[in-house]
Amino acid sequence: MAADHPYDPTFTDRVVNAMGPKTSPRLRQLMSGLIRHIHDFARENELTVDEWMAGVQMINWAGRMSDEKRNEGQLLCDVIGLESLVDEITYKVAADADAPTATAILGPFFRADTIARQNGDCLVTGVDDCEMTFMHGQVVDFTTKKPIPGAFVEVWQASTNGLYEQQDPDQVEHNLRGKFRTDENGRYWFYCIRPTPYPVPDDGPAGKLLELMDRHPFRPAHIHILATHDKYKPLVTQIFDRKDQYLTNDSVFAVKDSLIVDFVPRKDDPKASLELEYNVKLVPAEANTNGA
Amino acid sequence: MAADHPYDPTFTDRVVNAMGPKTSPRLRQLMSGLIRHIHDFARENELTVDEWMAGVQMINWAGRMSDEKRNEGQLLCDVIGLESLVDEITYKVAADADAPTATAILGPFFRADTIARQNGDCLVTGVDDCEMTFMHGQVVDFTTKKPIPGAFVEVWQASTNGLYEQQDPDQVEHNLRGKFRTDENGRYWFYCIRPTPYPVPDDGPAGKLLELMDRHPFRPAHIHILATHDKYKPLVTQIFDRKDQYLTNDSVFAVKDSLIVDFVPRKDDPKASLELEYNVKLVPAEANTNGA
Repeated sequence: MAADHPYDPTFTDRVVNAMGPKTSPRLRQLMSGLIRHIHDFARENELTVDEWMAGVQMINWAGRMSDEKRNEGQLLCDVIGLESLVDEITYKVAADADAPTATAILGPFFRADTIARQNGDCLVTGVDDCEMTFMHGQVVDFTTKKPIPGAFVEVWQASTNGLYEQQDPDQVEHNLRGKFRTDENGRYWFYCIRPTPYPVPDDGPAGKLLELMDRHPFRPAHIHILATHDKYKPLVTQIFDRKDQYLTNDSVFAVKDSLIVDFVPRKDDPKASLELEYNVKLVPAEANTNGA
Repeated sequence: MAADHPYDPTFTDRVVNAMGPKTSPRLRQLMSGLIRHIHDFARENELTVDEWMAGVQMINWAGRMSDEKRNEGQLLCDVIGLESLVDEITYKVAADADAPTATAILGPFFRADTIARQNGDCLVTGVDDCEMTFMHGQVVDFTTKKPIPGAFVEVWQASTNGLYEQQDPDQVEHNLRGKFRTDENGRYWFYCIRPTPYPVPDDGPAGKLLELMDRHPFRPAHIHILATHDKYKPLVTQIFDRKDQYLTNDSVFAVKDSLIVDFVPRKDDPKASLELEYNVKLVPAEANTNGA
């Protein structure tokens, strides 16, 4: 095969073929694809030593900045859309009304030890400049449409200052975060805040990359949801406020049309001026709707 | 344009087009190319969230391990051939007898403060199990073929235990390293060791990746050379022992045919049993042979 570039035409094949016989088939596939794409990228764009080294320094910087509370390598991927893309690839479902609830990325602020709360509880402590919202919904079986009692609905959201509780020493632990259990009708309900847009952390390499690409770091206002039940596939998603100014230019490209929701006025509730209904359709664990 | 995959056909364009008007043209080109290739890689191979996260952890690990003495991000690139490829792209020259000396990667063990030595000096302290070599050569102008007096030739090599002096507390500082100045005939000469193969550091993510790819970490025996002169383009290269067993499967893919040399027997020199002649052809600084 004649090369369509002026460089050593055998080079990439030599690198790919260096993999030994004990390489697992999946790793061989992934590394072959990655090596070919990265080499093609370098040749097509005549990547120089200095430009490549700038990329290496950015990767090393990301690693140095990462710890249990922060994953800067993940954030670098997020701002080039990679986490949202692999999310789509992994959990591919049609985004129409008759489909299970669409997925969105987990993000770096999930806590595995989210506190359990009772239906009707309020997630909010010490947030004065917010619009209180009564959020409720039903978790149903995607195939039978029947409600699922005893499902867990975990939610987490940033405060109006743009920070999740673990980023913010001024918030009480587990603020704006809670794990609810659906009742006998598959229903959950609680009070939270109408979310506000916030920037992803921009003091590291991901922030530098956004600046270089002349992009803002903001995420549209959203609420994270993780819905689980022993007999169903876990669902990780985010729901977005239809009125948010960043809905069409999320810095991590997580918005899908079916995840956009409406906050509507709520009357006669001293605890909330807004209401949000969000129903979740879970896929039975044994089903195989996405080829996975 | 119809997509040849089942995923959102607008996604990658949306990520690329998010770059703002103040993005520099070169960065726009590089990020567009990188985003398209990485997204194509993910879709073509149906990259899952778990596989992507394994890659993120490897990148973060590389950053955590890097410091002034070690660049693990660079080494990760090296084992997939990327540094050698961008070296070829940056310093492209035809590798025939009539060409300037070919380049090879600088590698992580260069020291900017290499000690100056006199022609005829010996680089070697405390290495007993080596074959002593008299290395010499001439630095000439690639265009006029005339010798270049006053050029600097820096060399560095690993000891027989596979370690460069800055990796090895048991070696004296600047061992197996020196900066020579060519005489009025453009000649340099000194004593060094016949290099031996050694593994790249394999206790980090690059070593893990090599293991996963069922590849050995060895580099063929080589001597690093940096040749400089005010009026010429600097040359970074490596020369390789023709008899080395790893010549065809260098773990970082740096070998080029024109950089393979022969160590020949040397007679009547009590200081060395081998001899190596290596001549260097430098390109005048104002010349533009490689389009750079």
